[in-house]
Amino acid sequence: MDLLGTVFVSEVLGTGMLTLLGAGVVANVLLTKSKGFDGGWLLINMGWGLAVMAGVFVAYKSGGHINPAVTVGILVSGAEEYAPGVDITATSTVAYLGGEMVGAFLGACAAYLAYKKHFDAESDEATKLAVFATGPQIRNYRWNFVTEVIGTFVLVIVVLSFAGTPHGLGPAAVALLVVGIGASLGGPTGYAINPARDLGPRIAHAVLPVQRNTAPAAVPVGSGSGSAPEADTPAPSAIRKSSDWAYSWVPVLGPLVGGSLAGLLSQVLF
Amino acid sequence: MDLLGTVFVSEVLGTGMLTLLGAGVVANVLLTKSKGFDGGWLLINMGWGLAVMAGVFVAYKSGGHINPAVTVGILVSGAEEYAPGVDITATSTVAYLGGEMVGAFLGACAAYLAYKKHFDAESDEATKLAVFATGPQIRNYRWNFVTEVIGTFVLVIVVLSFAGTPHGLGPAAVALLVVGIGASLGGPTGYAINPARDLGPRIAHAVLPVQRNTAPAAVPVGSGSGSAPEADTPAPSAIRKSSDWAYSWVPVLGPLVGGSLAGLLSQVLF
Amino acid sequence: MDLLGTVFVSEVLGTGMLTLLGAGVVANVLLTKSKGFDGGWLLINMGWGLAVMAGVFVAYKSGGHINPAVTVGILVSGAEEYAPGVDITATSTVAYLGGEMVGAFLGACAAYLAYKKHFDAESDEATKLAVFATGPQIRNYRWNFVTEVIGTFVLVIVVLSFAGTPHGLGPAAVALLVVGIGASLGGPTGYAINPARDLGPRIAHAVLPVQRNTAPAAVPVGSGSGSAPEADTPAPSAIRKSSDWAYSWVPVLGPLVGGSLAGLLSQVLF
Amino acid sequence: MDLLGTVFVSEVLGTGMLTLLGAGVVANVLLTKSKGFDGGWLLINMGWGLAVMAGVFVAYKSGGHINPAVTVGILVSGAEEYAPGVDITATSTVAYLGGEMVGAFLGACAAYLAYKKHFDAESDEATKLAVFATGPQIRNYRWNFVTEVIGTFVLVIVVLSFAGTPHGLGPAAVALLVVGIGASLGGPTGYAINPARDLGPRIAHAVLPVQRNTAPAAVPVGSGSGSAPEADTPAPSAIRKSSDWAYSWVPVLGPLVGGSLAGLLSQVLF
Repeated sequence: MDLLGTVFVSEVLGTGMLTLLGAGVVANVLLTKSKGFDGGWLLINMGWGLAVMAGVFVAYKSGGHINPAVTVGILVSGAEEYAPGVDITATSTVAYLGGEMVGAFLGACAAYLAYKKHFDAESDEATKLAVFATGPQIRNYRWNFVTEVIGTFVLVIVVLSFAGTPHGLGPAAVALLVVGIGASLGGPTGYAINPARDLGPRIAHAVLPVQRNTAPAAVPVGSGSGSAPEADTPAPSAIRKSSDWAYSWVPVLGPLVGGSLAGLLSQVLF
Repeated sequence: MDLLGTVFVSEVLGTGMLTLLGAGVVANVLLTKSKGFDGGWLLINMGWGLAVMAGVFVAYKSGGHINPAVTVGILVSGAEEYAPGVDITATSTVAYLGGEMVGAFLGACAAYLAYKKHFDAESDEATKLAVFATGPQIRNYRWNFVTEVIGTFVLVIVVLSFAGTPHGLGPAAVALLVVGIGASLGGPTGYAINPARDLGPRIAHAVLPVQRNTAPAAVPVGSGSGSAPEADTPAPSAIRKSSDWAYSWVPVLGPLVGGSLAGLLSQVLF
Repeated sequence: MDLLGTVFVSEVLGTGMLTLLGAGVVANVLLTKSKGFDGGWLLINMGWGLAVMAGVFVAYKSGGHINPAVTVGILVSGAEEYAPGVDITATSTVAYLGGEMVGAFLGACAAYLAYKKHFDAESDEATKLAVFATGPQIRNYRWNFVTEVIGTFVLVIVVLSFAGTPHGLGPAAVALLVVGIGASLGGPTGYAINPARDLGPRIAHAVLPVQRNTAPAAVPVGSGSGSAPEADTPAPSAIRKSSDWAYSWVPVLGPLVGGSLAGLLSQVLF
Repeated sequence: MDLLGTVFVSEVLGTGMLTLLGAGVVANVLLTKSKGFDGGWLLINMGWGLAVMAGVFVAYKSGGHINPAVTVGILVSGAEEYAPGVDITATSTVAYLGGEMVGAFLGACAAYLAYKKHFDAESDEATKLAVFATGPQIRNYRWNFVTEVIGTFVLVIVVLSFAGTPHGLGPAAVALLVVGIGASLGGPTGYAINPARDLGPRIAHAVLPVQRNTAPAAVPVGSGSGSAPEADTPAPSAIRKSSDWAYSWVPVLGPLVGGSLAGLLSQVLF
């Protein structure tokens, strides 16, 4: 396989691992009859953090970005390589972003298979969507965007600082970091902090037979409890049903902006 | 001791440590009057993950497989050695698998001794079985099998990728991985992801004086709450009583298939 | 940038990361409608510990003090440098302490932005203050001071001992230590163990539009439930309202004393 | 200071750190009005595990035994040194054991000071005792002894195996191990697994003004809920009041036997 093919496959594998385990832990905590039902926020944080660890381990050939915000952050930081031996070019950037998106979609499909009977047994559509995609607790796109920018800024700036401190943590460093970001900044929006992590599974949610045909198609679906639209946000009737596409740009653009800010700032700081 | 004897003893010790601590944490969370009673899913995940860490540490002479799915995964991966200095042969394979099974049985017996009075005080037979062997939340052998395949695939593919990333985590890497798999993929079936971990303790459950003689022998025993048989699965009357042998092939074959798939795929990926 | 400017900026960045993530996890657990609401003490401990890890990583150029008690502890310990290449002088000390205070203030402001809508939705003033500053469970300044001295002594003496043991934990060592201190010694006062961590966010609380104008200005604010003044402590009427300035000296002086004791003792012990 | 004095002081410091943080986390979870009240078993496990980490770090000069069962285990294992440069002799053994006991007592006193007002506010004598010393959930000295033997065997055999696996975990390895032992084997007796950890604080409980004078002196005190004496165990009237001295030999002899068995077995295994 040529280098770009290797990068693509590696990122598919790593990001697939990320969303398989990430969507998995949410399924475990939210879906009815699951052994981890109602297991708490720290369990979700641990699950997502260790999902990152597993993803970075298996994607070692491409440096384990598994997140477009990291790829873009490195691009903007003025680095010369995406990973040892992988130059930063337009095609390599496409290989990373494409692999991340494909992997994120496939991983969510695998999580669906692992929890197939629990999805079948779940009657609440919003709960099923929450396994795949993030959603805000207080629906206000402007401030939800701010939260995603801040969370992803923290992720990327700290990742870019890792080289400054000798340590033997390997991929556990970013795993712990993601546990921390989830614990600290995940409260308002569920910390996508990764466009692929949110968009790929959201597409999977739209494509897979997750939703019940018996449910009336016109019911507006909020994501998560307490998701009440605010004044500067489209009214409920404008929120597209099913996969909540109205919100979907926030966890894509927010992380890209946050990662870019971190990349730029890293030029000054590190 | 010759090399194969060393391998056997090492795997007995490591897998025994695994099921002692693994069955122990389930006993702590499930058995009446225990200090960790109702301690939650993350406690169980941490207990099993750190059980793996302890097992891998003490089984260092044989490379700490402590899991037939790992042994088979390495076998299928085309590797030349099971551990430094241990060639892959029919006899060494038997030494690994035999040690893993014997250790898993003995460790469960030790966990029984550690919680002896709590087993005596426990009146629910399904709870006692759950300390030893895994069981599905929604009883559907086909999908339970899929879940075990996916979980073990994750375990083995990530373990086989460890060599690609320099780090100083040692056995804590696989410990964290197992915490993550439990958090993310343990919801439907309780993540055996290891044929010895499930079959050895299940035999121990059948052999040890765990069950009350006063309980009517004909009562069908599901494992775990909400364990309702589905259409493509034997009806309750067909589920063998006591140690739930009807389910026992799932956590044996599922992990072997998942580990084999990971071993094969690793030839292409890594 | 000259060396002292680098130190200042590095400590601003690191301490800002600390209070952003630290105040963030408290906001997540305490503020209404947050996804981590009521997530428990261990979640708070993990959040603060990993906040320290992130802060130390990004502040690698200045050795990641991010805490005046650490800076003072090193000063008193008789060390020759604050970090490799950074001599201990009056001006470098000022650069550290100034950066820590400025960073702690700014990080709390960023946490406010990340949780803006949740602060707006929160009606309890004491809860909002608790996101920023620590407060005692049983209000007794003398014993609250003792608790902060002990906690910070543990922090600084263990940090000063790190060099004695070879390990590859990097900033995860102090992260785990802070998780432990929070779990073990955080019960009475909320473990400031860092003057900047408490004073900077307390100033932010006083400056930011956190408090509702509609709330009657004369209501005395205790910090945390069960905060009942005792005999040797000013009566409620003497506790200044809003940002609880009456208590604010405890989490400043206590940590400075504890850190100094650790620095002095380290001369004898290590 | 001469070598044995260094060993003694180092073990005082390390074991003091252990029981300060260890008793601290129990105080946090059990004592009324504490911020970590009712924080769960995993919080206690984490607190004790990280207490070990902190203790081992500060006691680096003596190899951080901080546990007579470890010292005896090393003695019995046939090792030549207790730590680099510290020969195994009668006097060095006394220095270790003496330092461990003195430190364990002093650390418990420090924990008492940190939680002084919470002890004053606590009305339940059994709860206060539980902060200091372990107690069984089902009072049966024979089986309680077995549980302590098994738990300490695991601790010491795994510690003695650490050298077999290269890793960079440092004192975090034993910290994680102790988290795991607590999660898995702590359910029946509260995992003393260390004679000094139990006896030192129990003496502190007897000496310090912890108990209320107003409490009737004749009330028999069980330790922990559900502590019901069984047939082969002294009846309640025979259980000495206050510090539960009747049970105190179990968490001393059990760990010494378990550690010795591990030391002996390590000669064959490693």
